[in-house]
Amino acid sequence: MSPPPLSHESTVDVAWGDCDPAGIVFYPRYFAWFDHATHRMLTAAGLDHHTLVERYGAVGLTLVDAGASFKRPATYGARLTLHSRVDRIGRSSLTVKHAIHDAGGLIVEGHETRVYAERNPEDGALRAAPIPDAVRRVLLGE
Amino acid sequence: MSPPPLSHESTVDVAWGDCDPAGIVFYPRYFAWFDHATHRMLTAAGLDHHTLVERYGAVGLTLVDAGASFKRPATYGARLTLHSRVDRIGRSSLTVKHAIHDAGGLIVEGHETRVYAERNPEDGALRAAPIPDAVRRVLLGE
Amino acid sequence: MSPPPLSHESTVDVAWGDCDPAGIVFYPRYFAWFDHATHRMLTAAGLDHHTLVERYGAVGLTLVDAGASFKRPATYGARLTLHSRVDRIGRSSLTVKHAIHDAGGLIVEGHETRVYAERNPEDGALRAAPIPDAVRRVLLGE
Amino acid sequence: MSPPPLSHESTVDVAWGDCDPAGIVFYPRYFAWFDHATHRMLTAAGLDHHTLVERYGAVGLTLVDAGASFKRPATYGARLTLHSRVDRIGRSSLTVKHAIHDAGGLIVEGHETRVYAERNPEDGALRAAPIPDAVRRVLLGE
Repeated sequence: MSPPPLSHESTVDVAWGDCDPAGIVFYPRYFAWFDHATHRMLTAAGLDHHTLVERYGAVGLTLVDAGASFKRPATYGARLTLHSRVDRIGRSSLTVKHAIHDAGGLIVEGHETRVYAERNPEDGALRAAPIPDAVRRVLLGE
Repeated sequence: MSPPPLSHESTVDVAWGDCDPAGIVFYPRYFAWFDHATHRMLTAAGLDHHTLVERYGAVGLTLVDAGASFKRPATYGARLTLHSRVDRIGRSSLTVKHAIHDAGGLIVEGHETRVYAERNPEDGALRAAPIPDAVRRVLLGE
Repeated sequence: MSPPPLSHESTVDVAWGDCDPAGIVFYPRYFAWFDHATHRMLTAAGLDHHTLVERYGAVGLTLVDAGASFKRPATYGARLTLHSRVDRIGRSSLTVKHAIHDAGGLIVEGHETRVYAERNPEDGALRAAPIPDAVRRVLLGE
Repeated sequence: MSPPPLSHESTVDVAWGDCDPAGIVFYPRYFAWFDHATHRMLTAAGLDHHTLVERYGAVGLTLVDAGASFKRPATYGARLTLHSRVDRIGRSSLTVKHAIHDAGGLIVEGHETRVYAERNPEDGALRAAPIPDAVRRVLLGE
């Protein structure tokens, strides 16, 4: 049996400044937390941005798609738990799923799809590149 | 023939502080711009937040789903054009589609689905409510 | 001898999205962290926003002045420690001082001056009001 | 007589997401607008970040101090006008003053002090450097 792919748990304390005039989290903040969670998950696995750039020659894991469903609102003072996990690994892309819970249960779930990007040596433009095997093994949790 | 539903065009000048260490727009900013564009579209049509609350008794148009596809990056100094339009109006929800262009073409497209929310007079909890006819007519561009 | 006034320690993990194209924290984020630290300090002492509003009739502790000096930059992945303390309590205002350290020492210091605000019952306008004795005792750490 | 130093006027439409649960602008947003105004002022004068880096060898104009006084709050839907001007030019630093008005008058004033920074060729560390004469002349409005 294969091990489960990479996953990560983190927490966020909702700040006054994360909330809008309705008193609830301004929704783009959830995407900022998704992004932070993905970076922390990759960093914890040894795939921080510097390593991706210097060891593997990537430009980064560039976002190509993101989405979220909002089940219940959260407000300042709440402590949220983010569960993030690699859900799908393609040839040159991966999808990370995120679920955010408060004390009462699930409040937001969403995803980010990212492409392993490198720079075309001919013209400098970004392009999708196959995920190197060493990176793939980390993402697979191997 | 029916008129086209509500739409709106706005511009954003990408700031240094909107961009991340890769030098491109940090993607949650696009969702903040979606939200701002929706508010401006509704306000221009006479459906600003105060009016929704005071005239129609709504709590607001609460976000339940959002997503975006990122085609090409943008960086500071770019002037972006946002085209926003009401794409679907259900009994108690509506979807707004957004397309963002820079000088070279489409860079981001996405959507927001929002629910017309009111407060349950019995327990104070938020609940979806039918969109009032007067609001619906504005959204339909009538 | 008097006890020291209210103080609080918190931590921030600098996110990719907190940083600008120079790869360092975009400076308004430090002020967001100041604000969050002040709210957490007050909440830990029993003076969360709800209590200020409901028990003491305040509108809140409204910011009237803020400033910061930036000694050294920080980047994503850094863990920062925020030391916050009530530095001065006047008749209707207080100043909170913040110092932010990374592993190498002090990187930012700053302040926020806030006014205890209530609503004028005659015209609804905000106005500074004397800090109630019970609130003052908490701020003084008594 | 000397010409007045560099100045710039810009506008901000306050968004729902710029405001906090009290319904007023979350104060770090004013600093983001200061920063954006400074960048636009410099860019309009031909001193955009790319030019500073490529023509003059600077790393940038690094912030060392910022502060603001908040006179009256603003809320979503307000159109704000920012007046920014170079107030002082030292050997290696400059101060930009900002004043923000709404329809009723001054609401925020503040400053940013920035250092002309270059990289020490010996160890790569950032250090303050004398502002080149060509840059100084632009800042002086000559």
